[in-house]
Amino acid sequence: MRTSRLEAFSDGVLAIIITIMVLELHEPEGHDLAALWHTTGSSLLTYLLSFIYVGIYWTNHHHMFQVTQRVTGGVLWANLSLLFFLSLFPFTTQWMATTDFARVPVVVYGVNLLLAAVAYYTLQTVIIRTQGQDSALRTAIGSDFKGKISIVIYASAIAVAFWSRFMGLLSRSYALPRAAGGLWWPG
Amino acid sequence: MRTSRLEAFSDGVLAIIITIMVLELHEPEGHDLAALWHTTGSSLLTYLLSFIYVGIYWTNHHHMFQVTQRVTGGVLWANLSLLFFLSLFPFTTQWMATTDFARVPVVVYGVNLLLAAVAYYTLQTVIIRTQGQDSALRTAIGSDFKGKISIVIYASAIAVAFWSRFMGLLSRSYALPRAAGGLWWPG
Amino acid sequence: MRTSRLEAFSDGVLAIIITIMVLELHEPEGHDLAALWHTTGSSLLTYLLSFIYVGIYWTNHHHMFQVTQRVTGGVLWANLSLLFFLSLFPFTTQWMATTDFARVPVVVYGVNLLLAAVAYYTLQTVIIRTQGQDSALRTAIGSDFKGKISIVIYASAIAVAFWSRFMGLLSRSYALPRAAGGLWWPG
Amino acid sequence: MRTSRLEAFSDGVLAIIITIMVLELHEPEGHDLAALWHTTGSSLLTYLLSFIYVGIYWTNHHHMFQVTQRVTGGVLWANLSLLFFLSLFPFTTQWMATTDFARVPVVVYGVNLLLAAVAYYTLQTVIIRTQGQDSALRTAIGSDFKGKISIVIYASAIAVAFWSRFMGLLSRSYALPRAAGGLWWPG
Repeated sequence: MRTSRLEAFSDGVLAIIITIMVLELHEPEGHDLAALWHTTGSSLLTYLLSFIYVGIYWTNHHHMFQVTQRVTGGVLWANLSLLFFLSLFPFTTQWMATTDFARVPVVVYGVNLLLAAVAYYTLQTVIIRTQGQDSALRTAIGSDFKGKISIVIYASAIAVAFWSRFMGLLSRSYALPRAAGGLWWPG
Repeated sequence: MRTSRLEAFSDGVLAIIITIMVLELHEPEGHDLAALWHTTGSSLLTYLLSFIYVGIYWTNHHHMFQVTQRVTGGVLWANLSLLFFLSLFPFTTQWMATTDFARVPVVVYGVNLLLAAVAYYTLQTVIIRTQGQDSALRTAIGSDFKGKISIVIYASAIAVAFWSRFMGLLSRSYALPRAAGGLWWPG
Repeated sequence: MRTSRLEAFSDGVLAIIITIMVLELHEPEGHDLAALWHTTGSSLLTYLLSFIYVGIYWTNHHHMFQVTQRVTGGVLWANLSLLFFLSLFPFTTQWMATTDFARVPVVVYGVNLLLAAVAYYTLQTVIIRTQGQDSALRTAIGSDFKGKISIVIYASAIAVAFWSRFMGLLSRSYALPRAAGGLWWPG
Repeated sequence: MRTSRLEAFSDGVLAIIITIMVLELHEPEGHDLAALWHTTGSSLLTYLLSFIYVGIYWTNHHHMFQVTQRVTGGVLWANLSLLFFLSLFPFTTQWMATTDFARVPVVVYGVNLLLAAVAYYTLQTVIIRTQGQDSALRTAIGSDFKGKISIVIYASAIAVAFWSRFMGLLSRSYALPRAAGGLWWPG
């Protein structure tokens, strides 16, 4: 099976996920900047955060399938599970933002990040196994030290968030570009 | 006519159907796991169930059109009718879930599954007829015993659900992977 | 310019238009068929009607671009105007249905059908002009008597609807398959 | 990297943005034209305005990638930032319309137009830099005097809108076709 249709379907789903939070941008109740800030300020920042995250995954997905020629049933399902966890981003991001970064929402958000990272890693592994010995994807990602270490960092961040949500956010904001950048970030 | 555009349009529609229930994930009214569970727990499970179902159909659709080269007007319309019944999944799944699996919603959900299975079977039949004698699709699916038997099982499950909704759910949960796996599940 | 991207974008927009009314299928307030019928019966029929209409246009659009190789800026805009009028179908169909086919909503719905038919006809004309003398599209549609006559029928139906909404509906239900079938309906 | 997937993803996102305002077309509370006008008149005009704007950007985007063969990571992100600012159009257009063109919403709308124009210009620049010396895109757009001057006009219009919102609207309605037409409008 060629990869074209898997890419087209993923693009469709990711296009919806990345824009779905626009529907949450409710009109400000007033005519001035204060109204804009109070009514939609946090939604706008949440939308931006969620947009960047899904954008990173889309970019990585794009790069990954540049070096993938054929897909199997296993790849289709690994990809669907990645799409599922990504589709929860708008929801968990928003809950975290509207509760003003309360502990449980921050942990739930962290779990979502972790599950998406694991699903991405699984998809990568399934593709490499399909490609056999001289896997083009394996060559492209190298030892993927960053991919592995960021799953560890996510898991630690969730644990830490139980004690200090600020420390959790801090380590996560370090882990974010690392984890997501596993493939597209050179070096 | 090539199949590329039918596939692209179906991918667009299925991408919307598979993600539409994310819009139903309303924010929990509170900061803790109990709030998450009470407000969105059932929506989340419903979303997962609906996602898996549409995912199965997308996978099968993908496999089917791997062995289809050309489409006719009849194939376009058989495909549109499949998309229509699939698009009702989020609605019927949710009604069943929020009424706590009451009898009528379970039957309606079963009817939806049945209609989608029949539409899929019809699409398959129309493509095989178009392909003539040495149909690549017919070779791929063999006698499609599973496809036929699962339509019978769905119909029985609906009948049974009138007497016992639990028996209906039970037989359906057996029929699900069989029916949907008609094509992609080897053997 | 190749047609592939125009087709992909139109497929995306049409996929959204065709499924957007699923969002209007609100959950029945009850557990029985009566509740299903009262709460969602008319929405369901409206959705089906709108789905069929957009499906007809998608099918025709598909056929039209089978015999079109290149597009110009004019074709892009004629296509965008068709998409705009089609995107109003869910809205006008629903208004007509929920007002129980009152006169003004029926007329507005008729105007929407007319505008979409005119936009389709314009798109066809622009493509034929682009293709020059031996236009493959012109050959495919012949004199397009049906396309022209159905615009006349739509216009008359709107006029008639001012006096009798039933007569208007009647003539429209005759004009529908004719108009929409202009291209894909043989003969 | 080929451009096909960037185009497909952008088409998906733009298809959603261009149709998202249909969801804002609430049903008129009545059966007559007055009800239609009062309830949905302004939403309909807003939708049309937003549709035309996004349509112009889609057309330009289409033309731009006609003369682009390969993309880099930088192009992907420049494109994502353009999509982000375009996705805010429905929101800012609607706020401006429902506040009856109050000063702040008009300025915010102008800022959105400016940011989208800057993002488009950045994307263009990044592509040209990628293409090197004999950039096909640079040849196609020439000196892009219109692209540069319209950014100046947008910026001035925003400044002016602080004093007179009517003057701002006036200069913007002049700048609109210029700016957006940078590529596809010959001459």
